[in-house]
Amino acid sequence: MLVCDSERPVCAVCLTSSAAPAAPVQLVRERCRAGSLRAVVANSGCANAATGRRGLEDARRVQEEAAAALGLEPAEVALASTGSISHYLPMERVLAGLLEASEGLSGEGGRDFQRAIETTDTFEKRATLEISLSSGTVRLAGQCKGAGMISPRFATMLCFLETDAMLAPGSAQALLERAVAHSFDRISVDGQLSTNDTVVMIASGAGGVQVEPDGEDALRFGEALEALLRQLAIKIVADGEGAGRIARVQTSGGDRHEVERSARAVANSPLVKAALNGGDPNWGRILQAVGGELAGSAAAQAARETASGEAAMAAPDQPLSDRSLAIGVVIEGIEVCANGAALEIDEAALAEAVAGPEVEYEVRLPGAGHSAEVFFSDLSHDYVTLNADYHT
Amino acid sequence: MLVCDSERPVCAVCLTSSAAPAAPVQLVRERCRAGSLRAVVANSGCANAATGRRGLEDARRVQEEAAAALGLEPAEVALASTGSISHYLPMERVLAGLLEASEGLSGEGGRDFQRAIETTDTFEKRATLEISLSSGTVRLAGQCKGAGMISPRFATMLCFLETDAMLAPGSAQALLERAVAHSFDRISVDGQLSTNDTVVMIASGAGGVQVEPDGEDALRFGEALEALLRQLAIKIVADGEGAGRIARVQTSGGDRHEVERSARAVANSPLVKAALNGGDPNWGRILQAVGGELAGSAAAQAARETASGEAAMAAPDQPLSDRSLAIGVVIEGIEVCANGAALEIDEAALAEAVAGPEVEYEVRLPGAGHSAEVFFSDLSHDYVTLNADYHT
Repeated sequence: MLVCDSERPVCAVCLTSSAAPAAPVQLVRERCRAGSLRAVVANSGCANAATGRRGLEDARRVQEEAAAALGLEPAEVALASTGSISHYLPMERVLAGLLEASEGLSGEGGRDFQRAIETTDTFEKRATLEISLSSGTVRLAGQCKGAGMISPRFATMLCFLETDAMLAPGSAQALLERAVAHSFDRISVDGQLSTNDTVVMIASGAGGVQVEPDGEDALRFGEALEALLRQLAIKIVADGEGAGRIARVQTSGGDRHEVERSARAVANSPLVKAALNGGDPNWGRILQAVGGELAGSAAAQAARETASGEAAMAAPDQPLSDRSLAIGVVIEGIEVCANGAALEIDEAALAEAVAGPEVEYEVRLPGAGHSAEVFFSDLSHDYVTLNADYHT
Repeated sequence: MLVCDSERPVCAVCLTSSAAPAAPVQLVRERCRAGSLRAVVANSGCANAATGRRGLEDARRVQEEAAAALGLEPAEVALASTGSISHYLPMERVLAGLLEASEGLSGEGGRDFQRAIETTDTFEKRATLEISLSSGTVRLAGQCKGAGMISPRFATMLCFLETDAMLAPGSAQALLERAVAHSFDRISVDGQLSTNDTVVMIASGAGGVQVEPDGEDALRFGEALEALLRQLAIKIVADGEGAGRIARVQTSGGDRHEVERSARAVANSPLVKAALNGGDPNWGRILQAVGGELAGSAAAQAARETASGEAAMAAPDQPLSDRSLAIGVVIEGIEVCANGAALEIDEAALAEAVAGPEVEYEVRLPGAGHSAEVFFSDLSHDYVTLNADYHT
């Protein structure tokens, strides 16, 4: 249970975009004053997802009981759950637990809170920052849980942020959304969107330092928030299910959507992820993943624009025109493919480049002006073990 | 090398929709009379993909030399390659090999041809059928290769079909496209579209039985072709990389695109596939995969339509309305989820139901009128071993 002492905090919330959101996510959307939360009740072990009306009623009851225990309005209490899908909340334990938690609240409870939200994360994901603004220094702290699992559960991502800055309501939400877009939206363990993803930021204002919206201080606070969230996001990838190596793919090109889709296609390709695991510089899989993702795109149409039936056979001895995607691939600074064709490379140097714990892939699509990045983990034997060998 | 004795066969070709098609695919598109091919030259070990102009020139040379050896026009010779991406064809070996093959052509060469196109398939994928039509009986044979790999290569799918039926040109292509849509388009080993997928059908007409387009015989021939291709397609799944268990997901609902996307999302989810591998009836992962895929859809919009900011707090003690996707899930005939909520089930019966070599999942989306199916393999330790532990 996370409670803000300040009576008038300014808050912001980001929730999963899943079409099948868990009950606590629905409750926060429908029954919380997201801009002025006073408390968050989190539980691990049960996601309260795929639980229908009963799950919603359970969530509402948790919210009500927590509000009563804390002397707050229900709408001031947010919920966040993580764990197995399709199970109902063990209400007796949850209600007993929240009473216990409400009695043990403490300014030194940060680590206990971190432990309570973890499922099987193998290391803590916390970070703190001090930010110097024109009107003073503010503090920012974050705790999150990710996708380290030894029982077959979802990579639900929960993150809680606290700051003593005085933020303006609209500004808090805008700053959080922007920072999430550049951090948690940029990671993939297995490309599987959770039913429960939740990020809550509570700005108590206790430090007395006002952050004017749209000013230089808001910019600086936003940058610091983004840096902190990226740090936490990369920790989630590094602690992804069975993760051994992590990678970053950066795509660039002239079509914003194709650049974005290509980055995600590479990050989610089981073949690319398995090659990353094995330290194998098999970049043909990157080309394949992008070519497959862009099937149906303008580039693919161009590649197919000659008829597959009775094509013009005018000049069989003339060179063919290459209609394959003119993709470029660079691995750890070594250019391996240009204009869709393999380059002569130093195989030993390339093998060495991909043998480290982190690998950087660059994918160049035709055109310029847009870029996208995704951080991702590898596909390992441990991933299969974690998700296949133990039963729910 | 596959050669048709008949001088006026009717042919049909389906090629990968990848935006980065391999050189042989581009050659077939640009330089073949796809409706009247006389021969196909196939090689395994090198996909001739990501090879740019040089790869295209290599392909053109193979086509020319094969045509010369067989006394045909280059445009009558199609190519198909499978194997590692980003390597250039070893031209001396290929040219020597095609001369050798052209001298060893035989009516009994079916099995040799099958072996030549395999990479590391663990069993043969051939099938033959006799089809009784109103005007007589025709024969149909097919050979294909799939995704059994012990070195880290692509799941390139090649398939060759021969029939002695007399087909009309337009009819052949329409029949093939329809049969492919209901077979090879319905399978997934790892959701990775290949640069090289190729299906060629050659109808020699040698049996003298005419199949009138759009008649009862065309319908019967089409059904038989589809049955044969489905048989081969399911063999590809069963021999997928490291495959232990195979599954079929069938989705139904009111929105054609959502039904299609949901089936593929389930079939490609590493969490669903790992659960299949472990014989774990973890259907929460099916709900999660569909919910994630349909994020941004009308269903997801509905789930989010209440404001996440200062939502109306009018009746905190009223029941919440469930805005999660009203999905139904049935596993091997056991209904586990209805209207998005878990049902009480016999856990032991469900565990037993998913312990077999084949598992059937049914996903019911809101509405009716559309359905889709995908056959898929599991995610196993062997998949990781095949794709990570051995180097290119």
